[in-house]
Amino acid sequence: MTVPRLSTALATPPADLERELLASTPAIEHWLRSQWQDHAAPFYCSVDLRNSGFKLAPVDTNLFPGGFNNLNPDFHPLCVQAAMTAIEKICPDARRAVLIPENHTRNQFYLQNVAVLQTILRHAGLEVRIGSLLRELTGPTEIKLSNGSALTLEPLERRGNRLMIDGFDPCMVLLNNDLSAGTPEILVNLEQSVLPALHAGWTVRRKSNHFQAYRQVAEEFAQFLEIDPWLINPYFEKCGRINFQERQGEECLEGYVSEILDDVRAKYREYGIKDEPFVIIKADAGTYGMGIMTVKDPSEVRGLNRNQRKKMAVVKEGLEVHEVMVQEGVYTFETVEDAAAEPVVYMIDHYVVGGFYRVHTARGKNQNLNAPGMQFKPLAFAAPCSSPDPDDPGCPPNRFYAYGVVARLALLAAAIELEDSPSGESPSGES
Amino acid sequence: MTVPRLSTALATPPADLERELLASTPAIEHWLRSQWQDHAAPFYCSVDLRNSGFKLAPVDTNLFPGGFNNLNPDFHPLCVQAAMTAIEKICPDARRAVLIPENHTRNQFYLQNVAVLQTILRHAGLEVRIGSLLRELTGPTEIKLSNGSALTLEPLERRGNRLMIDGFDPCMVLLNNDLSAGTPEILVNLEQSVLPALHAGWTVRRKSNHFQAYRQVAEEFAQFLEIDPWLINPYFEKCGRINFQERQGEECLEGYVSEILDDVRAKYREYGIKDEPFVIIKADAGTYGMGIMTVKDPSEVRGLNRNQRKKMAVVKEGLEVHEVMVQEGVYTFETVEDAAAEPVVYMIDHYVVGGFYRVHTARGKNQNLNAPGMQFKPLAFAAPCSSPDPDDPGCPPNRFYAYGVVARLALLAAAIELEDSPSGESPSGES
Repeated sequence: MTVPRLSTALATPPADLERELLASTPAIEHWLRSQWQDHAAPFYCSVDLRNSGFKLAPVDTNLFPGGFNNLNPDFHPLCVQAAMTAIEKICPDARRAVLIPENHTRNQFYLQNVAVLQTILRHAGLEVRIGSLLRELTGPTEIKLSNGSALTLEPLERRGNRLMIDGFDPCMVLLNNDLSAGTPEILVNLEQSVLPALHAGWTVRRKSNHFQAYRQVAEEFAQFLEIDPWLINPYFEKCGRINFQERQGEECLEGYVSEILDDVRAKYREYGIKDEPFVIIKADAGTYGMGIMTVKDPSEVRGLNRNQRKKMAVVKEGLEVHEVMVQEGVYTFETVEDAAAEPVVYMIDHYVVGGFYRVHTARGKNQNLNAPGMQFKPLAFAAPCSSPDPDDPGCPPNRFYAYGVVARLALLAAAIELEDSPSGESPSGES
Repeated sequence: MTVPRLSTALATPPADLERELLASTPAIEHWLRSQWQDHAAPFYCSVDLRNSGFKLAPVDTNLFPGGFNNLNPDFHPLCVQAAMTAIEKICPDARRAVLIPENHTRNQFYLQNVAVLQTILRHAGLEVRIGSLLRELTGPTEIKLSNGSALTLEPLERRGNRLMIDGFDPCMVLLNNDLSAGTPEILVNLEQSVLPALHAGWTVRRKSNHFQAYRQVAEEFAQFLEIDPWLINPYFEKCGRINFQERQGEECLEGYVSEILDDVRAKYREYGIKDEPFVIIKADAGTYGMGIMTVKDPSEVRGLNRNQRKKMAVVKEGLEVHEVMVQEGVYTFETVEDAAAEPVVYMIDHYVVGGFYRVHTARGKNQNLNAPGMQFKPLAFAAPCSSPDPDDPGCPPNRFYAYGVVARLALLAAAIELEDSPSGESPSGES
């Protein structure tokens, strides 16, 4: 496998970010190590990065990663080892776990992710059964996977304050469901450890809180490394009261778009970047790239047509969008055979366990690559993210190391975000 | 790579040990997890195993493993991740480490081991320099390695209670030197963390203490798994006052040899094993397979000729042997292309990070495969030890998993042994 080519022509100072990270490896690892003394990493996490050569930044941090099937199987043991560490820390007495997946039972790719996760947890030494939130499920249901294996979904039961599956009493409940549909009553106030915590779900979580925590982390890290924090941190603002359907809040949105475009333009000038700045507007809660748009001029926000408004107004599970985030767009200058490629880094506990490129031929380098219906081609990282070689500039593990550093900064931000967030223990009801 | 063939014809109950371990994976991992709550694993460890099909047991546990170069480079990231965990636990603030290797500077294989170790520690986020105990070293000395890379050995300095290299002040001192030559004054009473502790060196350590701890661990594990502990535990006795040169203590030795042979014969009868029992006599301290012999009849111990006595009387660094261990011999029924093959499992912290087979054509299946001058051929494990597949009996990862379980039992015994051992902080002087 070849590492995606960076098609940017820039080789001036900001392009040195990767080299900067490599040269400081022991110091960076020491810095991260001390952060993990103070903050507990979420059980797992994936981070979508964008690499424009001059800038390498996270654009999305997912606390319910759904692409373990896309990782290089050679690094499966890294996942197992990291999961062992996580289990020891969080729940050393655990013998049994229930894994709760998303409800869409027809997505073969997603189901294979669930199967891989189940195997990782088993190899880490847990008995694992898969408990479904599907209301129509009345008994164990086997689902055949296209790779020849099978998954068994089972109905969840609540007995007092414990979650069970037909008498199987787990010590730990692992969510692989982002709770976009609300926090189900059956999960509230459980005696068992629920990982990640319920308030990591989209009912409670807000992207803007995450990026606020990330801004702080990026600033501290940049200060420590003596670099411009902008090189790893996209500008953003939050717009709290939007109603796309009724055209409310457009002025506020327009104002922020204008502000961020101005700020980015100034930075582009400072670094001699000739590209046209753009921003991404996205729902502050929710996932799967729904409710998302690319804007290059503030006026675009005012002139939304009916279809565009409709598209922005709802996300997954029909959740209405009233809060949006305006975020500096980061060009993807990485390409695989001329298709835009976005790196996605996977972590368990605070270890980078692998990653893949989301490669998409039909989309431009300034668009979101995680859009609904988008059939991206995953391209697993061929090498681990923990083996940089400063003596061999440009070798793939060096690029992967840089990804792993920035992804861990986003992970740290997620840890801080969850500490600061309300506990979310009250059920919101399913929408 | 093919997994070594087991040439034993036995397929009766004891041959089911591997299947037994596989079937109980989650329970075993849970049991081990709870042990690591109470005991701290040494920084690293390698365990020599012997697999006779009906029996899988450790025969040597090395706290200064010298074969990291023999591991499959694909699993390097596992080493890095485990080292990160170890450093976080032992010395989270560490930025710098000094690695102290053995003094034999002409063994290319060993030097490559040191280079691999240095890389693992660097990737785990430490600055690492190599401090040598060689008296004749007066300044930094570069040693070329046959693989094209190079190592720099530097003289150690003592400043007060700190060990340094030319102003480089480490937080942590990692020993890859087994201290057979005594505990050097320069290492005693350091403020810095010394890993493993000085009393893990052969000046203080005794194999019999290790196997006593292992006996206890094996019995508890066997009880938990409801198996005969003998299937994982070789019988042994210690002979405390031997002088081979002056033919003192031969009767005691003969008595123990006789006793163990009788016990093994009874077990062989119980399990219908037709082979002839044998014992290994080895120095209770020391390494490298010096001072070691294979015995099938008690009378052999009485009739030692001059050469045999001389061979048994001293081990590495000229250390005289006055204490020996008599241990049940375990046949190696694993073969690679008709050569006997002994699995060696490597661990960092309490994680299995890889292993290899020591393959030797010139030796019989009842002999020690780690003898002086022996040029074994290492054959790296092709798969990790953490990915068993109970649905695919006989697949290589299943065999590797079984190795990993028994190796971790020996690791646990080493942890307990070191807890119970004297601190060894007083220098013994170099011999």
